[in-house]
Amino acid sequence: MENEKTNEIISPLDEYRAQIDAVDNEMVRLLRERMALADRIGAYKSEHGLPVRDAGRERRLLERLAAMAGEDGRSEKEIRALYSLIFDISCARQERLAERPSPLAEAMEKAVAETAPLFPEKATVACQGVEGAYAQDAAQAMFRYPSLMFLSSFESVFSAVDRGLCRYGVLPLENSTAGSVGRIYDLMAQYHFYIVKTTRVRVSHVLAAPRGTLLNQIREVRSHEQALLQCGHFLDTLPDIHLSPCSNTAAAAKEAAASGRHDLAVICSSACAALYGLEILRDNINDESGNYTRFICISKKLEIYPGADRTGIMLTLPHEAGSLYHALARLSVRGINLLKIESRPIPGRDFEFMFYFDIGESIYSPALRELLCDFERLSPDFRYLGSY
Amino acid sequence: MENEKTNEIISPLDEYRAQIDAVDNEMVRLLRERMALADRIGAYKSEHGLPVRDAGRERRLLERLAAMAGEDGRSEKEIRALYSLIFDISCARQERLAERPSPLAEAMEKAVAETAPLFPEKATVACQGVEGAYAQDAAQAMFRYPSLMFLSSFESVFSAVDRGLCRYGVLPLENSTAGSVGRIYDLMAQYHFYIVKTTRVRVSHVLAAPRGTLLNQIREVRSHEQALLQCGHFLDTLPDIHLSPCSNTAAAAKEAAASGRHDLAVICSSACAALYGLEILRDNINDESGNYTRFICISKKLEIYPGADRTGIMLTLPHEAGSLYHALARLSVRGINLLKIESRPIPGRDFEFMFYFDIGESIYSPALRELLCDFERLSPDFRYLGSY
Repeated sequence: MENEKTNEIISPLDEYRAQIDAVDNEMVRLLRERMALADRIGAYKSEHGLPVRDAGRERRLLERLAAMAGEDGRSEKEIRALYSLIFDISCARQERLAERPSPLAEAMEKAVAETAPLFPEKATVACQGVEGAYAQDAAQAMFRYPSLMFLSSFESVFSAVDRGLCRYGVLPLENSTAGSVGRIYDLMAQYHFYIVKTTRVRVSHVLAAPRGTLLNQIREVRSHEQALLQCGHFLDTLPDIHLSPCSNTAAAAKEAAASGRHDLAVICSSACAALYGLEILRDNINDESGNYTRFICISKKLEIYPGADRTGIMLTLPHEAGSLYHALARLSVRGINLLKIESRPIPGRDFEFMFYFDIGESIYSPALRELLCDFERLSPDFRYLGSY
Repeated sequence: MENEKTNEIISPLDEYRAQIDAVDNEMVRLLRERMALADRIGAYKSEHGLPVRDAGRERRLLERLAAMAGEDGRSEKEIRALYSLIFDISCARQERLAERPSPLAEAMEKAVAETAPLFPEKATVACQGVEGAYAQDAAQAMFRYPSLMFLSSFESVFSAVDRGLCRYGVLPLENSTAGSVGRIYDLMAQYHFYIVKTTRVRVSHVLAAPRGTLLNQIREVRSHEQALLQCGHFLDTLPDIHLSPCSNTAAAAKEAAASGRHDLAVICSSACAALYGLEILRDNINDESGNYTRFICISKKLEIYPGADRTGIMLTLPHEAGSLYHALARLSVRGINLLKIESRPIPGRDFEFMFYFDIGESIYSPALRELLCDFERLSPDFRYLGSY
């Protein structure tokens, strides 16, 4: 008797879990039933040319279901959160069935079919700066024999590509220590072009000065602001120096060499110091030894090379609760990965933001095509930035 | 007979929808049952000192439910997405019941109780720049009689507050045209302090130069890089000028006044131009007339003033699929709004990011306290930046 009783005692936790398992089995069955019904509705709508999303019905449905929580505010919020996701899932299924012509999907298919399988070895490529700039390293990592065209500003690079003066432009997008290059994001919003390739360049800075300069003579250090930021710890060890941000590391090196001054040093790459005949006073001065910059290669024509598995998009989101969350839910329900998010204010709109997503999904995946069509319909400001 | 038949014909859409309604009613009933069971499990775990999250059980449960989708990959992804949210909801409920001591919650309660109801009228306040800087306008908007202490860099402001040289520091966080001030975000990660107030300052720039200067004499324009960015359109209209970024708009004005040069102009506020006796060559030169900068007031001591309804936090997220989405889900299931998101690379880690969230929820809301405790447990790098 004693024994039998012991056998009957199971932990309350196990009992609750068994009950939860039963609930879950039933819930998944209902979910699948709901999705099958959504598919049937989608097919009907597609046949009759009806819009997929019916915001009025969604709102009424949400009100009815939320009311089932009675006075329980917590449950109500939870039901709303779950049903928002269920609506996103249903719409994603129905969109797939709608088979509407999508100019973007067509352009992408065309680009995949027409782009040569190999990235070109030769091309005219615009970079910002002068000979020796890090963008040159990036261009040489992407192309075997680039004809480089050095321009004075990031904007001139976009403009040269836009006016067809060169086929490609190479620009820094983000650094692993100093962060995104905000100006590039803003220019992406202004110019129409596509990212066709990206590459990461390891950036190792040196402090260089005209020959014969001693470290303790230095009173001014010039370089691009990002390079100054990336070498903050080293610069803190130099007493009484003035930091002068300028447009480009190589431009600073060229100017310093021409000046012949012995109180001026620059931060640039060792190759750049050698190019302008500067002496290296200290090498590897960046705060972090793993200092990388990611460069993008832009083109006016959409080109998608085989195996592209990252896609860039930009879009604005409505200034309302949960809009970013719902945008990310569209990725989540399709099992798609977000690699990076960046937000930039929209000029003239009071702290409203343009979002940049870097999406990790193969160009051959139907889920990517669906997601892009979905965003295309969601946001009037949506822009596809290319796959690479 | 004819009539009866007509009455029977209902649209297939209505029929599908009636079926969906029936499924939803049943699903919400099951959801509520599941949540009630989660509460019972939470109470049991709390009583027996067991951890809320059981990653192993979640994984096994997810595998079992995902397998119910059979070969249907789409359904499988959807089930995974929905159940991730259901787990987040269950955990949020159980965390609430765990009633563990949270040092953060205690510190916040203490700060709410001990902070004076009115923001101080007088205080020593550190700003970057010199007399006439926009940070001065911000400090004067926050305090009635601030004693200003001008320091040369953003870092000196953090350091002065940290070493107790002044009670507060006022710093620019973001601009509606040029975006976030990345350097401030990086310093926030380095120094321990709290944001106690924020204010928006309308920034209207002028082009100013030593008296007697004509617009066509100008060859160089100096200002803070953000100000140069905010006036890009105007600057594009000036032929052959060199742009020199410097640390502060007012510092540029002070230097230009001292130089007496007639080929140098600066961008600063009209008050600042007047302060240094500069002549205004053009006013309101910013690209966007609605140009605002949001400033923060930092303090070493946590102070929470009545009615605070924004909270800043920072945290790293694991480098895995959907981690940002799941972090935002924690807000969504509690009906909490995300006002702003910013990401900055973590120095030394290869393109891993620190996220900054600006959360819109009253300091008196229990949901906010829960959310913060939840994040505190989720991310070892979590930091509460204050409520304001």
